[in-house]
Amino acid sequence: MAELPVAPCVRILKKAGAERVSEEAGKYFAEVLEEIALEIAKKSVELAKHAKRKTVKVEDVKMALNG
Amino acid sequence: MAELPVAPCVRILKKAGAERVSEEAGKYFAEVLEEIALEIAKKSVELAKHAKRKTVKVEDVKMALNG
Repeated sequence: MAELPVAPCVRILKKAGAERVSEEAGKYFAEVLEEIALEIAKKSVELAKHAKRKTVKVEDVKMALNG
Repeated sequence: MAELPVAPCVRILKKAGAERVSEEAGKYFAEVLEEIALEIAKKSVELAKHAKRKTVKVEDVKMALNG
């Protein structure tokens, strides 16, 4: 884990209207997003393999989001 | 938009087993994650306000994920 940096995730919370964000909430939000990202990524990779490709393309990510 | 950097998003795809990722797919994946993040963030901010707080806490993000 820990690929997504916390600072941009905190900026997204601020953009959503947060006046303040606790340090723990910023870290937790980044972790949650990374888990969600990994699930979508796994599905995208499966779909690329299913299409007999080694390269993940936009169409794989799009289909991963639909299923 | 464009808070989440593309490189960590590509690393998540690689971690999920991607051999290669097209440049467009990396960018698209980052955009999609940011949209998802913004939705969760908006709900988290609403929940903090609902609890009469100016600070977003872990409990807000947790509840945002449940609803």
